[in-house]
Amino acid sequence: MHAVVIAAGTLHWSERPDPIPGTAELLVEVHAAGVNRADLLQQAGRYPPPPGVPPDQPGLECAGVVTAVGPATRRFAPGDRVMGLLGGAAQGELAVIHERIAMPVPAGVDLAEAGGFCEAFATAYDALFTQCALAPGDRLLVSGAAGGVGIAAVQLGHATGATVVASVRDPARREAVAGFGAVSVAPDEVAAHGPFDVVIELVGGSQVAADLEALAPGGRIVVIGTGAGGTTELDLHLLMARSASIRASTLRARPLEEKALVSRALERHVLPLLATGRVRVPVERRFAFADAPAAYERFAAGAKLGKIVLAR
Amino acid sequence: MHAVVIAAGTLHWSERPDPIPGTAELLVEVHAAGVNRADLLQQAGRYPPPPGVPPDQPGLECAGVVTAVGPATRRFAPGDRVMGLLGGAAQGELAVIHERIAMPVPAGVDLAEAGGFCEAFATAYDALFTQCALAPGDRLLVSGAAGGVGIAAVQLGHATGATVVASVRDPARREAVAGFGAVSVAPDEVAAHGPFDVVIELVGGSQVAADLEALAPGGRIVVIGTGAGGTTELDLHLLMARSASIRASTLRARPLEEKALVSRALERHVLPLLATGRVRVPVERRFAFADAPAAYERFAAGAKLGKIVLAR
Repeated sequence: MHAVVIAAGTLHWSERPDPIPGTAELLVEVHAAGVNRADLLQQAGRYPPPPGVPPDQPGLECAGVVTAVGPATRRFAPGDRVMGLLGGAAQGELAVIHERIAMPVPAGVDLAEAGGFCEAFATAYDALFTQCALAPGDRLLVSGAAGGVGIAAVQLGHATGATVVASVRDPARREAVAGFGAVSVAPDEVAAHGPFDVVIELVGGSQVAADLEALAPGGRIVVIGTGAGGTTELDLHLLMARSASIRASTLRARPLEEKALVSRALERHVLPLLATGRVRVPVERRFAFADAPAAYERFAAGAKLGKIVLAR
Repeated sequence: MHAVVIAAGTLHWSERPDPIPGTAELLVEVHAAGVNRADLLQQAGRYPPPPGVPPDQPGLECAGVVTAVGPATRRFAPGDRVMGLLGGAAQGELAVIHERIAMPVPAGVDLAEAGGFCEAFATAYDALFTQCALAPGDRLLVSGAAGGVGIAAVQLGHATGATVVASVRDPARREAVAGFGAVSVAPDEVAAHGPFDVVIELVGGSQVAADLEALAPGGRIVVIGTGAGGTTELDLHLLMARSASIRASTLRARPLEEKALVSRALERHVLPLLATGRVRVPVERRFAFADAPAAYERFAAGAKLGKIVLAR
């Protein structure tokens, strides 16, 4: 098969041995695979994949059709449309997914959208519900909302009955983000729309300190992105006065069993929303797999609405 | 009755009207009342009590004997020895405690010790278990362990089957702290004893950044004290790499129902340990109520092992 391969910091569409599905694994003919920040970090040598994953093959998510299954497989059969979260090596003609990680692609959902579903929605779901216990009536701030995770968080918050405020730096994209179910504002207008019970922080830097100022008592901040900076000054008295928590977690580093748990939660709670169109995967642009360098460049350029996806 | 009263920043032992117990409240003849940092902050005008509490009468905890009860009281009767967590006004000859907040003082436990039990153990219990889900086998760091909350946390961690490391700045008090069930070390030796699953941070300032460095994956830091400073620089990438959380919460600001929940948890999980002597309340020094100014000065001087208590 061919796969996106990193060699000396450059991307190539290279020949690789076909992967072989293990006991409870699926061999998937990949139709689409999302591009994520971790791929760019891996290209730059700054995000080594977990053990057991080829270090030079990026890609955290894909969707396609099952072509073969391992001997103990129970959930899927050849011909099934599936999608899943991988530790790496998702951007190739073939990929192997453990069946406890894989999810069915609902009828009517395009495989190119499905290829960009898992990472953004798993990250947003885990942050909103598992880490921050978002509940109906909560005020949710999605800080830096125009990307894949941000739009997923806006949609999930809206579907849950939270009041969602989305901060979007680029005025040209505010209306589109509002269309997913949020009051869409400039970053410097956020404070007037608080206080917030939950903040999904996709920008980082000193924005985290501003989040704490705008937090309601008992509020929770989860830091997912750090494009605006990797440090912030933390006011401990304010943390105490707000009875607040600040947390962070990356999905990629988690072991198989935790990824399976996230996938099962996503299948149960979010797939019905995807199947009925209450949430969708906005795709900013598709690229052919062989054009991965251009796709990564487009991702790095920012100012996008939703996902960059490699697709056949 | 007489009570400790703050007038223009000075403490007095002054005449006040006797409090009257409401529907489900207990009137308690106070035998002892602990001194806490919040009392000193209140004296300095920097910690206003919650609504419904006299703003000039400090004291967050006391123990004594019930002398009268409101009409709908079910749990206690006159003559019972009780202790409890109050929003304020605990340092007087009489105090009123809601019966859902009150706990029985186990037979064999001195009322002077009981007067210093509630605040330290409720704070430590809430931080360790409710906020940080401490479990057997966890490595627990109690940072700044020689005070009331610190020694309570060491004992509760030890009784739960955690491995407890206590940092104590004063070498003269390290052995005594170790006697409560911890490996007792100097602050600069902490890193060699990690990584830690849970950190109870009683010192604050840049120590919080050091805690994050020494944290295990999925680790939790709870900030309770800020004597070393009210701010820290927070490394967001490290927060992500550790899948960590940093939180804080003050008991005093919580509504009656939440204090009742903490009291019930304490009664169920910690009172049996107190009754059998597996945990105890170390009292650094007792003062007469009329000597409150000296007691507060002793508290402010630091370098104490356990609690400062006002007692008859």
